[in-house]
Parts: sequence; C-alpha cells; structure tokens
Amino acid sequence: MTNQAIIPWEERPAGSSEVMWRYSANPVIGRYQIPSSNSIFNSAVVPFEDGFAGVFRCDNKAVQMNIFAGFSKDGINWDINHEPIEMVPGNTDMIESDYKYDPRVTFIEDRYWVTWCNGYHGPTIGIAYTFDFKTFHQCENAFLPFNRNGVLFPEKINGRYAMLSRPSDNGHTPFGDIYISYSPDMKYWGEHRCVMKVAPFEDSAWQCTKIGAGSVPIKTDEGWLEFYHGVINTCNGFRYSMGAALLDLEDPSKVLYRTQPYLLAPAEMNELTGDVPNVIFPCAALSDGEKVAVYYGAADTVVGMAFGYQEEIIDFIKKNSLSV
Amino acid sequence: MTNQAIIPWEERPAGSSEVMWRYSANPVIGRYQIPSSNSIFNSAVVPFEDGFAGVFRCDNKAVQMNIFAGFSKDGINWDINHEPIEMVPGNTDMIESDYKYDPRVTFIEDRYWVTWCNGYHGPTIGIAYTFDFKTFHQCENAFLPFNRNGVLFPEKINGRYAMLSRPSDNGHTPFGDIYISYSPDMKYWGEHRCVMKVAPFEDSAWQCTKIGAGSVPIKTDEGWLEFYHGVINTCNGFRYSMGAALLDLEDPSKVLYRTQPYLLAPAEMNELTGDVPNVIFPCAALSDGEKVAVYYGAADTVVGMAFGYQEEIIDFIKKNSLSV
Amino acid sequence: MTNQAIIPWEERPAGSSEVMWRYSANPVIGRYQIPSSNSIFNSAVVPFEDGFAGVFRCDNKAVQMNIFAGFSKDGINWDINHEPIEMVPGNTDMIESDYKYDPRVTFIEDRYWVTWCNGYHGPTIGIAYTFDFKTFHQCENAFLPFNRNGVLFPEKINGRYAMLSRPSDNGHTPFGDIYISYSPDMKYWGEHRCVMKVAPFEDSAWQCTKIGAGSVPIKTDEGWLEFYHGVINTCNGFRYSMGAALLDLEDPSKVLYRTQPYLLAPAEMNELTGDVPNVIFPCAALSDGEKVAVYYGAADTVVGMAFGYQEEIIDFIKKNSLSV
Amino acid sequence: MTNQAIIPWEERPAGSSEVMWRYSANPVIGRYQIPSSNSIFNSAVVPFEDGFAGVFRCDNKAVQMNIFAGFSKDGINWDINHEPIEMVPGNTDMIESDYKYDPRVTFIEDRYWVTWCNGYHGPTIGIAYTFDFKTFHQCENAFLPFNRNGVLFPEKINGRYAMLSRPSDNGHTPFGDIYISYSPDMKYWGEHRCVMKVAPFEDSAWQCTKIGAGSVPIKTDEGWLEFYHGVINTCNGFRYSMGAALLDLEDPSKVLYRTQPYLLAPAEMNELTGDVPNVIFPCAALSDGEKVAVYYGAADTVVGMAFGYQEEIIDFIKKNSLSV
Amino acid sequence: MTNQAIIPWEERPAGSSEVMWRYSANPVIGRYQIPSSNSIFNSAVVPFEDGFAGVFRCDNKAVQMNIFAGFSKDGINWDINHEPIEMVPGNTDMIESDYKYDPRVTFIEDRYWVTWCNGYHGPTIGIAYTFDFKTFHQCENAFLPFNRNGVLFPEKINGRYAMLSRPSDNGHTPFGDIYISYSPDMKYWGEHRCVMKVAPFEDSAWQCTKIGAGSVPIKTDEGWLEFYHGVINTCNGFRYSMGAALLDLEDPSKVLYRTQPYLLAPAEMNELTGDVPNVIFPCAALSDGEKVAVYYGAADTVVGMAFGYQEEIIDFIKKNSLSV
Amino acid sequence: MTNQAIIPWEERPAGSSEVMWRYSANPVIGRYQIPSSNSIFNSAVVPFEDGFAGVFRCDNKAVQMNIFAGFSKDGINWDINHEPIEMVPGNTDMIESDYKYDPRVTFIEDRYWVTWCNGYHGPTIGIAYTFDFKTFHQCENAFLPFNRNGVLFPEKINGRYAMLSRPSDNGHTPFGDIYISYSPDMKYWGEHRCVMKVAPFEDSAWQCTKIGAGSVPIKTDEGWLEFYHGVINTCNGFRYSMGAALLDLEDPSKVLYRTQPYLLAPAEMNELTGDVPNVIFPCAALSDGEKVAVYYGAADTVVGMAFGYQEEIIDFIKKNSLSV
Repeated sequence: MTNQAIIPWEERPAGSSEVMWRYSANPVIGRYQIPSSNSIFNSAVVPFEDGFAGVFRCDNKAVQMNIFAGFSKDGINWDINHEPIEMVPGNTDMIESDYKYDPRVTFIEDRYWVTWCNGYHGPTIGIAYTFDFKTFHQCENAFLPFNRNGVLFPEKINGRYAMLSRPSDNGHTPFGDIYISYSPDMKYWGEHRCVMKVAPFEDSAWQCTKIGAGSVPIKTDEGWLEFYHGVINTCNGFRYSMGAALLDLEDPSKVLYRTQPYLLAPAEMNELTGDVPNVIFPCAALSDGEKVAVYYGAADTVVGMAFGYQEEIIDFIKKNSLSV
Repeated sequence: MTNQAIIPWEERPAGSSEVMWRYSANPVIGRYQIPSSNSIFNSAVVPFEDGFAGVFRCDNKAVQMNIFAGFSKDGINWDINHEPIEMVPGNTDMIESDYKYDPRVTFIEDRYWVTWCNGYHGPTIGIAYTFDFKTFHQCENAFLPFNRNGVLFPEKINGRYAMLSRPSDNGHTPFGDIYISYSPDMKYWGEHRCVMKVAPFEDSAWQCTKIGAGSVPIKTDEGWLEFYHGVINTCNGFRYSMGAALLDLEDPSKVLYRTQPYLLAPAEMNELTGDVPNVIFPCAALSDGEKVAVYYGAADTVVGMAFGYQEEIIDFIKKNSLSV
Repeated sequence: MTNQAIIPWEERPAGSSEVMWRYSANPVIGRYQIPSSNSIFNSAVVPFEDGFAGVFRCDNKAVQMNIFAGFSKDGINWDINHEPIEMVPGNTDMIESDYKYDPRVTFIEDRYWVTWCNGYHGPTIGIAYTFDFKTFHQCENAFLPFNRNGVLFPEKINGRYAMLSRPSDNGHTPFGDIYISYSPDMKYWGEHRCVMKVAPFEDSAWQCTKIGAGSVPIKTDEGWLEFYHGVINTCNGFRYSMGAALLDLEDPSKVLYRTQPYLLAPAEMNELTGDVPNVIFPCAALSDGEKVAVYYGAADTVVGMAFGYQEEIIDFIKKNSLSV
Repeated sequence: MTNQAIIPWEERPAGSSEVMWRYSANPVIGRYQIPSSNSIFNSAVVPFEDGFAGVFRCDNKAVQMNIFAGFSKDGINWDINHEPIEMVPGNTDMIESDYKYDPRVTFIEDRYWVTWCNGYHGPTIGIAYTFDFKTFHQCENAFLPFNRNGVLFPEKINGRYAMLSRPSDNGHTPFGDIYISYSPDMKYWGEHRCVMKVAPFEDSAWQCTKIGAGSVPIKTDEGWLEFYHGVINTCNGFRYSMGAALLDLEDPSKVLYRTQPYLLAPAEMNELTGDVPNVIFPCAALSDGEKVAVYYGAADTVVGMAFGYQEEIIDFIKKNSLSV
Repeated sequence: MTNQAIIPWEERPAGSSEVMWRYSANPVIGRYQIPSSNSIFNSAVVPFEDGFAGVFRCDNKAVQMNIFAGFSKDGINWDINHEPIEMVPGNTDMIESDYKYDPRVTFIEDRYWVTWCNGYHGPTIGIAYTFDFKTFHQCENAFLPFNRNGVLFPEKINGRYAMLSRPSDNGHTPFGDIYISYSPDMKYWGEHRCVMKVAPFEDSAWQCTKIGAGSVPIKTDEGWLEFYHGVINTCNGFRYSMGAALLDLEDPSKVLYRTQPYLLAPAEMNELTGDVPNVIFPCAALSDGEKVAVYYGAADTVVGMAFGYQEEIIDFIKKNSLSV
Repeated sequence: MTNQAIIPWEERPAGSSEVMWRYSANPVIGRYQIPSSNSIFNSAVVPFEDGFAGVFRCDNKAVQMNIFAGFSKDGINWDINHEPIEMVPGNTDMIESDYKYDPRVTFIEDRYWVTWCNGYHGPTIGIAYTFDFKTFHQCENAFLPFNRNGVLFPEKINGRYAMLSRPSDNGHTPFGDIYISYSPDMKYWGEHRCVMKVAPFEDSAWQCTKIGAGSVPIKTDEGWLEFYHGVINTCNGFRYSMGAALLDLEDPSKVLYRTQPYLLAPAEMNELTGDVPNVIFPCAALSDGEKVAVYYGAADTVVGMAFGYQEEIIDFIKKNSLSV
C-alpha cells in the first residue's frame, strides 16, 4: 500500500473549539452523483496508488442497495463507477447476494479487503479482496445472519484476522453491541468476544439503544482508534451520532477509553433531512498520523466529511471517557 | 366532459434527463391557502368547463380532515372554497362521515365522480357524484372498512364501473396491495381481484411495504396508465414515492408493466419536511395525450406538481419494468 | 328444506339453573375423527333430508385448513367425508383458495349456501351453494380481504341476501365488530352497516376485544336470534366466549337486545386445553322453535354442543341486555 | 415577587390574523448556547428581581439531561449557567436523580418552586424551591413513577398546593391525560382527579394521542389560562402542537373551555427539523395581564417564543372550544 | 381485633420436604361459588370476631370485576355475599369505580382497611375502611393511575401509614417493581421509595419480568414477612409464582432477604388451566406466629391455599436469598 | 462408542396406524425428578458404555437454566446428577455462561460432544466434549449471538465438523430457519448455508413460524434422518410440533425430503399443560437401524418419548414431503 497521498483536510473554523469539525462544503458526495443513484452514503475510502480508492453504497432509483468502486486524487472529488462491483469467486463459490450495503475497506499485507452487509437470507457480513479495485474476489460470509457493521482490523492480531461486528436481527434492530471475532484464514471465524455494549441511558443517551463499528481502526500508540456510531431511540425514530473508542493494541476486545459525549451528531440540514433523517454514520477514516478525515453517511442520503487532529481526538477520548 | 383547457405545463429543465420533473414553483398550493387550513395535500383535479375543478383535502387547524371543492383556470392558481363539501343523499341516506380525506375525481359518461377515504367506523371508500362541483350526491360506501385509496376508472369496463382500492387495517397500516372491484350500479360491488402486490425488498425496496393507487388511470394505446405510490418502512418511518404501471385495457387486473425504479421520490425540502416528512403521494394526473401533469401531496402538507411526456413515461415503464 | 329431523337434545342437568348447558358427552366430534385430521372444530350443521348435513373444518396433520361435508341421522353421530369439498364454478371462475375454514351453512329458498373464511391474499368470505352436499358451486368472494365470520341470514330481507361479517386484518386481529351487507344476487355486495361493536371493558369484558357472528340467525317472534362469540384479551391470550343477540326482523342492523353476561365460556377441560386454549366458538344452531342446540368449536380442537330452550334464551337476553 | 419587568413582546405581523404569532427572531435560545450543550429546549422562565430568571433543560453532548439556572434582563437574551443546578435537601434527604428534564417554575407566596421530570427508577415529578435561583432545596418527589409534565398552580387553592401532571409509562408513552393533585405541604399528595382527556380523532386530531400541561396557569377573570401540548401519532412519529384551556378558578379540575384548533403547530424549519422533528412544547408563559409571551421547546432542540393578547386568546378559546 | 380463631391448617404431606405445601382439597373456593360468578380468585382474608372475614374478587358472568365480603368460621368454608360491596363516602365524595379487583385487607388500630385495584381512568389503588364488613367507607385513591397491588402494612411505621404498591401502565404491564409510600392520614401520600426490583433473568427468572406485593406483611422478629408474586414472560404468556421477602422492621424500604427460588409455582391442574393459565397470585396470609396459611388466586379462576411453618419459611428465605 | 445397549422400545398400540407413537408411561422424566428441579425437559441421550448417558436441562426452582449429566441402563429409568455440569477449559479459557439450556449430545470419533444454548450476552451455541460424562471440556462458542438449537452431525463431512443451528434474536424469536456451518477444528466456523426455511402457511402451517433442528441426525441409506421442531404462532401463543427431514449424505445443506404433516404434535395433557403449554420439542433420537426412540421435551416441563420403525419413518417422509 502506497500511502503518499495527502489526506483531505480543512482547518478548524475560526472560533471553534470542537475537537472535530465538518467540511465546509458538505456533502462531498451528493445523492445523484451517478446517473442511477437515489442516494450515496455509508461509504468507505482508502489510500490507493497516488490517490484514493473507495467502495460506495449507491442505492439506485429502485432502491436496490449495491456497492460501487470509485477513485479520487484528493479524497474529495470522486469518480464513482456507474456499474456496481461484480464479484468473482475468492475462497467460495457461494457469491449470492440479495443486496450489498455499508461497505468498509482496508489494506492488509498485500491486498485490499472489503467487508459489507451482505444479503443472504437476511443481513450478514460479506468479505471480498481486490488488488486493483477492478476485480473483486468474494469470500465466504463471515457469519450466520443476522449481522451488520463488519469492520476488519488493518493487520492481523496474534496471527489471526480480526473483525468487529454487530449481531442484530432481521429488521430495524432495536438493540446492538460490538463484538470481535478472529479467523486464521478469512474463511472460518471464531473466538467471539463482546467488546462494547450500549451505554446506560443516564450516562450517555446518544449511544443507549445500539452501537456499531464505523471506520477501520487506526493504529496509534494509545491503542486502536475506532470511530463508531451510537443510536438513541427518540419518539420520532432513531438518531445516529458518532463517537470514538481506544481499544487495546494486543487484545482489542479490551476497551481502554470510549467517548461519553459524541464527537459529531446530526445538526446540519443535510444530516437532519433526507431519506432517513438524523443520521451520521461513519464508515471510514483516513489518518496520516497527525490529521484525521472521517467519511460519514448523512441522513442515509449523502456523504459528509469531518476533520480533527489525531492527538486531540485521542486526548478528548481519554478525558471524556465513559467508565468502561 | 369538455376538455379544451390547456393542461398546466412546464418544460423539462435544461440538462435534466429525468423522465418526470417537478414544477419549479412548487408547492402549487400552500398549507395555509384557505383561512382554516393546517395543510392542503393529497388532492384531485379534473378538466371542468373551460378550466379545471378539483376536490381538495384540507385539514383544518383542529386537524379535522375534510374535502373542499376548488376551481382554476390554469390548473395552477386555485380558488378553493372555504367551506367543505356538504353532501346530499345520492343512492343512500347513510351519509355519515367521521372524516373525509384523500379524494380522487373523474368524469364518467355524464357526471363527475368523487371517491375518498370516508370515516365510517374506520376508513373505507366514500363515493359521490356531482354535475357542477356545487351539489354533491353521496352514494353508498363501496366497501366494508378498512380500505383506502379508492380510485375509479374513467369509463365502464365490460359494462361495469371499476375501482382500484387498497384493503388496509384501522391504523397506520404496515402492508397493502392494490385490488380491483366492479359494480353494475355504484351501489353493490364485487368480483374483487388482486392487481398488484408490494415488490420484494431486494427488487424494488421503495415499494416493498405497501402500495396504493394514485391517479385516475389514463387510457392509452399501451394500456391504462396508472400513477401509484409505494412505501418503504425505514427505521425512521414510512417514505412514500411515486411509480407508474400499465394495466391491460380489457382486463385491468392484469399488470402489463410496472416501474421498478420510482418516478419521483421525496428530495425537495417541501417533501422532506412537513407534517409527515418524506411523502410524495399522487392523487391526480391530467393528460392531453401528449403531456402529463401529476398532482401530488408533499409531506402531508402541501400540493406539488410534476410533469412528463406521456410517450416517454410509457416507454420508461416498459423498459424499466419489474417482472410482473 | 325438509325439517322433520328431531334436533339433538339433552335435558338440563338436575340442579342446574343455567339458561344453556353443555352436552354431557362432549366433545361430540373428536380431533382425530377422520384419518387425516389434526383437529375438527368451528363447524356448521343444517337439517338435511331426514337427518342433518354439515360442513366441517378439519385441519389436517400438515395443519392445512379445509372444509369437509358430513352427514348424520341424529346430529350427534357424524360421518364426515375423508376428502375435502371440491368446488365447481358457480357465478365465477375464480375459485382459488389458499385455505378454507370456519364454515357456516344455511338453506335459502331452494338450496344450501355455505360461507367460510376463504384465503385469497388473506382471509375473506367465500360463498358456495349446493343442493345435495355433494356438488358445491363456488361463487365470487363477498368482500375484499380482510374479513372473517361471514354468516348469511336464512332468508332474503327486503329482497336482498343479507350477510353478517367482521372486517379484520391479516393476522390475529386484536379488534373487530359485526357489520351487515346486502346483495341482490350473491355476486355484488353493498349497503354495509355497522351492527354491533365490542362492549366497554367495564360493562362486559368478555366481549371487549372483538366480537363475531356465530350461528345462522334463527327467526323468532322477538327478532333474529343470533349466537355470537366475544373475546377478551387476557395477559395469556384471547379467551372466546358465547353470547347472543336479538336483531330487528325488518332491519337487522338494529340490535334490540344483547347479552351482557355470556351464555357459555370456557370451563371444561376440552375447552381450556387444546391447540388454542380457552375457546368457545359457535358456528351453528339448530332450533325446532322450542329447543335450541348450538354447535361450537372448543379450543380450536374439537366440536362441543350446548342446549337451551329458545323461549328461556330469548327471555334471558332481554333481561340481561347491554344497553345497545 | 417583584413583577416590574416588561415582558418580552413583538407585535402581530402585518397582515396576520393569527391569535398567536411567533417571534420573528426565533429561536431565542440556540442549541449550542452553553459550551456543553447538545440542545436547549422545554425550559421555563419567571419574573425575577428586575428581570427574569429561568430554569433550562440543557442536554449535554453525552445527551445527559439536566436543568440549569439562567438570567435575563429582557426575557430574550439569556445568560444560562454553564453548570447544572446542584440540589440541597429540602423536605427530604432523597435527592437522587438519574436525570432531570422539562422544568417549570412558579412563584408561590414567598419563594420560587421548580418542578421537573425527575429520573427515579423512571420518570416522575421532582420538586424544589429556591429564593434566589442559586440555592435549590429539593423536596420529596410528588408521585410514584411514571409521570411527566408536573405543573404547579401559582397559588394555593382552598389552602392546598395544586399540581397538574400526566401519568405515563416508562417509554415513549403513547397515551396520556391531564390530572390534578393536591398537597397540604409539598410532601404528601392526594385528591387526584382527572381534568382533561385526549380528544376524539375526528374532533381534534392534533390532541388525540396524548396531552400534557405546559405553562404554569395564568389567573384570569375567565379562569385559569393553561397552555398545553397535544400530540397526534402520525405514520412518521409524534407531532406536538400547542393549545390552551380555561379551568375553573375554584375547582380547576373543571374545564370551562378548551381549544379545538391548535394555537401553534410545527411549521417553521426549526420546529420541523432537529433532534425530534415536529415538536412545539410550551413550558412557560409570561403575562402582564394584557400581553402573553409563551416559551416553547422546538424540535427538542431550541427554544422559541410566541406572543398574543390575553383577551384575544381567551376569546378564541371560548369561541373555538371542544365540548368539554 | 380479636385473633382467637385457629388458623386453617393441614400438615406437611408425608415424604414432602417442601417448605410450603398446598392444601389437599384445593381449590378452597370454586369459580361458581356464588350464583353470579364466573370466577373467584385473588382474594383476602383476615381474622374477624370468632372466625374470619374476607374480601373476595368475584368476576361475574359479564366479566365485570368487583369485590364482595364473606365470612367463615374456619377460614376454609366461606359464605360470600351475593352482592358486591357498596361503598359510602369516607374521607372523600369521589367513590367512582369503573371496576374493583384484587383486594387486600388488614386491621390497623381500630378498624379494617381494604385496598384494591380501583378503576378510575385506569387502574389505581382504592382504599376503604370498615368496622364490621357491612359498611365500607371509601377514601381517596392513594395514587394517580396506573398502579396495582397496593398492600398496607398492619401498623403505622414511624407514625405514618405505609403501603406497598406497583406502578404499572394501562394494559398487561410487562414490567413492574415494588415501591413503598407513606401517609399521615390515609388521604395524602408521599415519601415514595423503591423497595424491590425484578431479578436478573440469569439469577431468578421466575421473577424477572415483574413483581408485586401479595399478602399484608406479617411482623416477625426477623423483619416484615411479605409474600409476593413474580412473573416470567414465556413465549406463551406470563407465568406467576410466589416468593417471599423479609423487610426491615424500622425501614421497610430495606430488603433484608428475598427468595431466589420460588416458594410455590403453578403445577396443579387448577393452576395450569383456567381463565388465565399458569397463575399463582397470593393476596393474603394468616399467621398465628407459628403456622402460616397463604391464600392465592389460581389461574385467575379459583382460590387455593398453601401452608408452612413461619420459622421454616423465614429460615428458607434467609438461606436462599438473592443478593439484595 | 460401544452401542450394545438395547434401545428403549414399546410396540405400536393396537389399532394405531400412526407412523410414530408415544410411550404409554410418558412422561419418562418428571418435573421434580431431582430435588432442585422445577422442570426437566429438552434433554439429550446417547448410548454410553453398557447403557446410556444423557445431558439434561433441569431448570431449578429459581428458574435458572443449567445442564446436568445422567445415566441409565435402559434409557427410561434415569439417574440424573443433582449438581450441574462444571466445565473445565477445552480449547478456550472463556467458559463464562449466564445460563445453559437445550443440550444435544453425540459421539464423534473418540469422544462425546455436547452442544447447548449458551448464555453469552444472549443465546449462542456452546460446545464441550467429554470422554466419561464426568469431566466436560468447554470449547469456544460456535457463533456470535443470537443462536439456538445447535446440533452436530455424528461424523465429519468432507473432513470438517458440521453443525445445524438456528439464527435467532434475543427474545422469543418469531422467525427462524435451519442453517449448516462447518469447522475444521471445533474452534473456527464458516461456510454457512441455509438448509431449510419455514413452510408457507397454506402448505404446512405447523412449521410456518420457525423451525429448528432437534435430534443429532441419524445416518441412513436414504440420507441423514433429522427430527426437527416446527412452530405455528396461534392467537394464544406458539405451538411446537415435530417433523423430520432427510438431508443429502454428501451435502447435508440439500434437503431431499421433509414432512409436510407433523409426526407428533401436542395432544396429551402433559404436552398441553405445563410451564409452556403446547410444546413438543425433540432433542435426541436413538436408533439401532431398525427402531427409533425419540426424546422430546413436553410443555417445557417434562420429558416424553415416542417410537417408530426407521424404515416406516423414512418411507413416510418420502411419501409426505413438502416440495423442497
């Protein structure tokens, strides 16, 4: 993986004291950016060659959910393919999918791995690898249904691949915690452990209904930096916000710190209105070790970005941590 | 029926490739257009004399639902009566209504027929006729409760009146398909047949929860052109979009083609926000054989319009059809 | 209709002061009375030739619901056919049924009419006629779905066929009132009126959740005598009991009297336990003008009988009436 | 209580015929007005010294709910403390609270009383008094859980303190009526009476799901003037609007008049969008006998104001009253 | 209160090692013991004159719920009045009741106090006193709705009356904990404290859904001995069992010990079947200091009894206590 | 595995034509068979030494769910340990369990494997092995929660262990299909495939709500013979019945045949009443190649047995198969 691209960035607005702030030109990707799309959101990007590649959730105007490859020089202006990714068999011949959504992407060792919510008699975690974002090799689904928000760590841990995920049900699941699972081979998974549960309502209501892993974790000296979403069930529906956690580098099932306040919650018009109002849903984070750029789905309709300094973010998490 | 009025029209915006496009001055009818109204939406219009007449759903500020007559020269600027329609007995003395909403209007043979959702121990389909939009003769309800979205065909089929409708339950029904029923006399109804069911989630999610007839069908060489609404149940509520179908001219219980993608879905601020966010609900379509103007309720608050060329619409339906 | 058969009867037990009492040898029909059956219940009988004929709900061991003809000399010992009724077209070619259950039978003018809950994209009311209980001619479904408990009056009223029914939803409907509809021809139905609604909890809780017509009404000097079921929703499920009403002879949408106390409620072991515990569900009543024999489904598993003197029953209804 | 401050006011907009109208610079308090806040809404104000004091619901960015004191010279520009109110024991040592929200404030005899929704194994009504808005003395909770919207009358009635409240359940309660209770000592409460119930859907749907007391009642010659909220359950969630009632001065459990139409319903963008869309939730009203200024939470996010002439409002209530 | 009557008793069956055992002739009161009754259950008894008096829940055959006085010499053979208790005003004129059910009775100082679930716009706790079980003086309801299972302590505690109760909702409440409240005068209530909450599923599932006070507490050297019910929500409904707790004599909001295993759970046919299967619901306990006789409703249909030695019961509670 | 024990057996009753019939002395294990038990049900047995061993679900009187070893010479008279199984670490140190229930047992190669529903933040599949039914070595949970009814095949298939299971949710799951998963090492699992889904209501309603694997599959020439349970959701709760399927020997994700009618459904009093009425839940089957003895939980309270001839059962499945 070449990582020479300069990550997209915009300075903290004058007068702001927020630890993370939005891109002033949000949304970076509009709902109709490709001809067939009804909405483009909950998408993932990764450094690629001299720029960036990404896997994008584009729901078409039949509201069929699928994932599309895209490319960018600067991480902000994107060329998204007009046709969805076609899979070829990787370690399985079973590449059936009723739908694909909410992708994440990471580079491990020699290739890029994509995970997504894969429709196989209900939502579960699909896995594929690619070397070039042209040919994608689909592997066995990681788990039995019903699962969402499968996120791989960017390197093996104790010799095994590691994945965060959220067991769920077959509808608009009203509960959900984050687990970790391990695999020697990206085919068989086990050693499942509970990592983080929802917070008590009185301690941190924005994450009291369900939580789910967001970005591929960023390795830092202080632990794995993971941006995740939390949900509160208001009388008028779910509200999705973004927080972050630091997981132990050796044993990432251990949460070292976890934000009690959110880092970002729906407040801009493109987050408050759209196909699903009041959603901020992070799926990717770029870091150059100093700066961090987070990509998040807004209102299940468009893609927004937010920025922050990694050291400040880590400091904030540690100083504003829920007891974990 | 004189049909000399020129239907309201606005050309496709430059650069647009959409098969249907919105009126640039939406909403055409605002929520407070009559003094008592909280909202005006889900309303129907028809050519009348040298212009147009309509029946409008105006919820007043007690949020009582009722239907009001209105008139327009151009189909865009409307004078809506300040008092609701008072019914006189037609083929029944039972003209009780707890509420009236979501009217449709059509001309058959010698008079205008209005159907609406009529509150009689729950929602069912009310029927009335008028010659002048001043005196309305209420007839027997078509069906037992619970039913909504009763839409008459504009002519008899095989000698019988024909009506599309959606059996429902007594609340915010989370299911619903379109049926057809026939009547020799607008009093007794039977020969009920299922016409269209919701689509599988993975094929066309915008219409996977419930569907309902919208406009009075337009007779074309390719079949009855019917604009209908479809609903998806998101985690934050129902989202209503508009599609269209072509029904067999001889046996309209047969669907010839039906849009897999929607034609119009909530995306403008007056569709995304309002008393019920994320609703586009067509109730009428004017056609001069070449051009089509659709009236739809937006966010259960105002009335919007959209336009398209009939031939292009038909072509789109045929080329983008769900397998039916 | 010859009506010479002596109706089944057993005297009131010594010491009892109940207005209606159970047959001492209940159940009269056991769950396994035909080889294929899982359960036989909610069934209807009628005088036929020199004895009785009936239409029986027999769920087979795949728990498929269907209706079967049967015959008896005495109304107690029944020969039920081992094969379900096969329909031939009556006034329709559409004789599709996903399932058939809960039949009622009555003789009108020259033939026997059967109504039942017919599966056509959900439950609605199927209609058929027979002259001999061998050949059954299926007619158009009376209504759009969703409806259950369709019960014909045994003669035309003001020249039209009349049917009681209960609009419902597509599941274990938690509400339900009794309506009447009329038809000139057993094909088209209209003039729908609400007849009886559930009772307030504090007045008569056994019928506060839903009610439904049971037996074909019996014509008496005091009005149409109708046995119906009422349901209370306990914390452990629905409990079905039996009451009765007197409807106006000329306008049966008018309730003259209606039992505040039940006439029969689940209390015997074959009513308290079975496939659906705590159900008494009347579907037929035989009367010779003096004595009445009611057939009811018990626990959705077997058929029970109860007896009473018609005059006493009418007297009881009038003296123990809900304000209607 | 000194009451010399001039209440905030803005004249009715030209051309408007509304009985109450919004402040043109709404919201008066923004969501981020104090550093920790996610939202500030559902808050109460009262004349204090030569200006105004208030108790504000500020949810912090962990979405913990708490109440904060604030001060203003003009009722529009507010200094809200950055730290929540710390209670000291009043007539109880039990000052535990899982959360505090939706405060109301009134002056009785010699001190200011605050009531709020207090988290004690679920929501119930907390009570505290203060002389200076610096030290707050917490008293016994008025009721067992589950209760919300506790509002004190501004003087004793027949020698006892009087409180309106709404019994509820432990979630997003889908029902709710207004009751009154009395106390000799602000410690023990009794003589509970039902005051107002939800309206029938067909009469006044905006208040058909639940209602709750809003402002501290204003004493007028025509009765206690109470601004309250009403809720309708749309297919996309609860919509909260504002109405008003006149309660009998001597026996405020008697409703004299009550608005059938709402006085204010969500229509502005800051009411239609926010953490909970479509909410207008009044918690306080200032009156100088001539003019009235109402403070309401908008979309569970910010505070808005509306104005009206007291005489016109009373006249409107009387002329547009539900039968009560 | 004279307490000379010998409490009903039957020795532990041979071979049994149960700490409490059933009466061999259960049910002691059958469902039809008075002419009007559908069921008699959840009833309370107390020593009275030279025998016992009781207040019985008798649902009539309209399934109207009411309470009836009854008398017995031996506590087993009961004469229950055929007419329900008629109240006269005690400390209130508001003696309206939509229904009355689940009474408890105790003697305090100079009179007998009855509490019950009183229908006043939903369930709340009714209170009355009597000297003779002939004239009953109804007092103010203790609480706002919604509440059930109000149980008085048999003496004042620190000079105030004390009552256990369970806040609930307006349906088949799926949650519920036990609280205590105090009153100086049986009119105003306050100082509400949570006493006992449901147990974690994995610790004691029979009491994991809701719990409620049963008998009037028995004063012992080891604390107040309280028999209560616990509920588990199985896939086929609620199952009610009986446990017991010891509460601190001085401060009964403190639980000293509480049974982890149940003392009695539905297992006999009259507990497993009936109007509501699988219910054991204790409402009274007689103690002579050595022996204890518990009266419980079985299957919401009849009354059963169980016996035990007080010392053994207390010992069992202490040795088998949940951590509290 | 020695398999010399003669399997328990009782001949088909005279006059019966059932393919499977109940043991005449059911239940074989009563609810109180060990001192601590509230109920013993859903238990598994296997040939062991010169008789049989088993793992039994015994819920204690705190209704804590755990599994216990037991032994029998004849498969009918059982000695069940009074203490639950204590696990030692197998291939994991994580042997935490909130509860254990519904065990299955099979012998593979050199040891006995037990699977059960293991409480780890919700239900999932626990695995352990034993050589002697004294020491049990707990392994990694097979899956993430939420899962139930994990059943191992009695030999490796294509070199991998194979397990049937049912993904579910965290409550009384109202859906559920049977999947198969494979493992090279009893630690990591993958290659998940859907095997059998619920049947359409109209084809086989007893298995239309959810299905789950029951017994360890029996290898036969015609395929793997699997006894499973199916559930219908009646208005009064779930009813569990037993059917059987034949799975392809080489690829058991292929269903060859599957019973449309049930083989056994609740009809005896110990199946109709108990802690959960109307449950037959098979967990084990013994076969000597000719005869089959099935153990099933009855009403979540006791253990029953049923018998049949293997060839007849296979023949019945093939002749009465759902189209699969």
